[in-house]
Amino acid sequence: MNKPRELDTSLLDALRALLGDRVTTSRAIREHHGKDESYYPYALPDAVTYPHTTEEVRDAINICRRYRTPMIPFGVGTSLEGHVLATSGGVTVDMSQMNKILKINALDLDAVVQAGVTRKQLNEEIRHMGLMFPIDPGADATLGGMASTRASGTNAVRYGTMRENVLSLTVVLVDGRIIKTSRRSRKSAAGYDLTRLFVGAEGTLGIITEVTVRLYAVPEAMSAAVCSFKDIGGAVNTVIQTLQAGIPIARSEALCALTMKALNAYNKTTHQEQPTLFLEFHGTQASVAEQAELVQEIAREHGGEGFQWATKAEDRNRLWSARHMAYFAALQLKPGTRAVSTDVCVPISRLTECILATAEDIERASMPIPLFGHVGDGNFHLVILIRPESAEDLAEAKAFNERLVKRALDMEGTCTGEHGVGWGKKNWLIAEHGEAIELMKTIKRTFDPDNLMNPGKLVPLD
Amino acid sequence: MNKPRELDTSLLDALRALLGDRVTTSRAIREHHGKDESYYPYALPDAVTYPHTTEEVRDAINICRRYRTPMIPFGVGTSLEGHVLATSGGVTVDMSQMNKILKINALDLDAVVQAGVTRKQLNEEIRHMGLMFPIDPGADATLGGMASTRASGTNAVRYGTMRENVLSLTVVLVDGRIIKTSRRSRKSAAGYDLTRLFVGAEGTLGIITEVTVRLYAVPEAMSAAVCSFKDIGGAVNTVIQTLQAGIPIARSEALCALTMKALNAYNKTTHQEQPTLFLEFHGTQASVAEQAELVQEIAREHGGEGFQWATKAEDRNRLWSARHMAYFAALQLKPGTRAVSTDVCVPISRLTECILATAEDIERASMPIPLFGHVGDGNFHLVILIRPESAEDLAEAKAFNERLVKRALDMEGTCTGEHGVGWGKKNWLIAEHGEAIELMKTIKRTFDPDNLMNPGKLVPLD
Repeated sequence: MNKPRELDTSLLDALRALLGDRVTTSRAIREHHGKDESYYPYALPDAVTYPHTTEEVRDAINICRRYRTPMIPFGVGTSLEGHVLATSGGVTVDMSQMNKILKINALDLDAVVQAGVTRKQLNEEIRHMGLMFPIDPGADATLGGMASTRASGTNAVRYGTMRENVLSLTVVLVDGRIIKTSRRSRKSAAGYDLTRLFVGAEGTLGIITEVTVRLYAVPEAMSAAVCSFKDIGGAVNTVIQTLQAGIPIARSEALCALTMKALNAYNKTTHQEQPTLFLEFHGTQASVAEQAELVQEIAREHGGEGFQWATKAEDRNRLWSARHMAYFAALQLKPGTRAVSTDVCVPISRLTECILATAEDIERASMPIPLFGHVGDGNFHLVILIRPESAEDLAEAKAFNERLVKRALDMEGTCTGEHGVGWGKKNWLIAEHGEAIELMKTIKRTFDPDNLMNPGKLVPLD
Repeated sequence: MNKPRELDTSLLDALRALLGDRVTTSRAIREHHGKDESYYPYALPDAVTYPHTTEEVRDAINICRRYRTPMIPFGVGTSLEGHVLATSGGVTVDMSQMNKILKINALDLDAVVQAGVTRKQLNEEIRHMGLMFPIDPGADATLGGMASTRASGTNAVRYGTMRENVLSLTVVLVDGRIIKTSRRSRKSAAGYDLTRLFVGAEGTLGIITEVTVRLYAVPEAMSAAVCSFKDIGGAVNTVIQTLQAGIPIARSEALCALTMKALNAYNKTTHQEQPTLFLEFHGTQASVAEQAELVQEIAREHGGEGFQWATKAEDRNRLWSARHMAYFAALQLKPGTRAVSTDVCVPISRLTECILATAEDIERASMPIPLFGHVGDGNFHLVILIRPESAEDLAEAKAFNERLVKRALDMEGTCTGEHGVGWGKKNWLIAEHGEAIELMKTIKRTFDPDNLMNPGKLVPLD
């Protein structure tokens, strides 16, 4: 990665005149912003800013642009693909102090928030209204970050991803223009879909400062279940047949035996250490009971056994927090290691085949590689455990991931279902998109001719 | 509108060398392609072509581009906003012979089709597999046209619009490049959302030649209902409260008393001629029964009475075809008239207010103006009946629509929920989008620097 360069002192002066002590060059803070949860090396920004308003973001962008200085938006740093690394130095725009919930429109089932609001913060605020924001990538990410990476997670199978759940955005472009991408109505056919252009753009086309998201009524009943299978294929096929039957399952996670072992050790639970499905059903009492019964029947046909139910909120929460710990639990399989995360997604008809071929590859690997994922979407993750200083481990992990991505692409899949491209995957986009990648480059150059907005991410510019 | 100009004979020769007798300059055929279902005047293309493959579309585009000749994609001509009018002359690319269903991926719940396949054709083909494509704008439009206008319709409240239901597109750009916008996996975080950029672009950025759409399992049970209200507010509030309660209603249409009168006359039915809701529920037998009961209870609280049920497929189909006839039925309220259609959409919390203010405006109008719409989305239509040769009627209708659009924009709504911008609404985009309209112009100029792709539509270029 490029070496950070010294910032012009007059640039710093201008930022300080704008933001006062909400500009810092402290090494500790720059280090915190030069790293995410990926294994990629530190790449520190030269300064970190903390704007409070869209107008401050605009003014900071205008200053940085005049000095041709890169700008990197930062939420809470939970990216797994190096999105926040300052690979060309520059100024990090930390959005975490833009954390105001601006408007809850309960009747419209939507909320307008500043980009630094996290999903848990929003849910805390709306729970008493009987509302929820369901998109749940595990980490308590900011909604701006989630929009920027087109995040999803365990219940996308029912509620969709950020693509489907962002109604409108406020974005500041590199030239300082403030854009509102859409009105607040639930649908519109009025012009190009600017909202979707910025959702998933990873800060490379502008900085998102406000997000309008859809909310949902908290279902009358929610019920979760755990079910073991002899093989992972049985778990996957249970989910496919459930979707085929039109059963509106809310969550369906498959976990391999090794992941279950890691979860048991980490969470002190006693689940069967076999391929397992975590399921969840949302609806009325009666419809949840009916869905549960139908899925139990399908699971039994595929060798599922030992259903355990969790209907109380605290039991369900315990189950899903345990699931969300899979990444950290996996790390503890071999303490002292770090993780290379993978994120392919394939059409679900190819999922079993993709997972089984990957399982064979796992057997040949020198390190433990737990597998788990959102099977209803065809998206699964591996956590490849590597020793921090081992070049061999890293090379092996990279080669493994290359084979995995190639396998997914051969099955009409994608190199990233939900983590995004960031710094780590941009070269895969060429194989994935072919000619279309040139169009993405054109869009990037049109919106950001001097390559100042989160440079080095998403688009494989030469 | 600009006068059509003569086509260069060598352009015609080149197109004939490519497509043989699938190029025509016959006046009758050009007339058929120079008009849609709007009230806008004829604007004939200079020639009409009928490609069969993506490559033929590419070759035709390459020829037209060399002659700097506009290209207008055409599905089946059911637009209500003049999308297909050849307002600068040029060559219409009629996609209706690209009507092959290329692949049904039943396990993945998706289908790959040529852009000229209509929604009914697709549904015929997949019904025996227990699958359906639910997006239903009324007309039997092509899927390419529906994607291009971001169409939706009666059951968007449950299944979303084309925005949510297109997985991938094949598009030919003006420079002849063939772009596949995405892989076939259900979700992806790999780069800019090119799919959504072309969905709703109305052929102004390229011509869609293939569409991959999501399919759904046909529910075990579907049940429709008709319920009358004393006032339209009761109908709207019933739907709002239903959504608030998280009841997954599949369709919810409100119709005013005048629309019911028109429908009765046109379809020889005997519905109450009062404000009415048409509802539909999808699910298992038990969940449909439960949903129906819950909604009936909510409706009663808002003055709903006289529920009539239709559970058999033929009864349901009759009900919805009757609803789809609202536009034609309305025309018969005053035979010999033509219609100015409106299409605003507002946040649902403002819907009652918007409809009531509009109802007052209707009372002051000199012509009959029936009202109906997809209240679950906040989207409703008026059919303003004007005498074909009356400049006064047209001026009154336009002024009425201006007040309506302004009212919707003041309520954070949009000038078009689903009909699109086309030729008729592009000047409204400026009021609706503010600064963002400049970004749309930039996108248009980047993709189509010589303004050859469906010129004069969507983007208000100066």
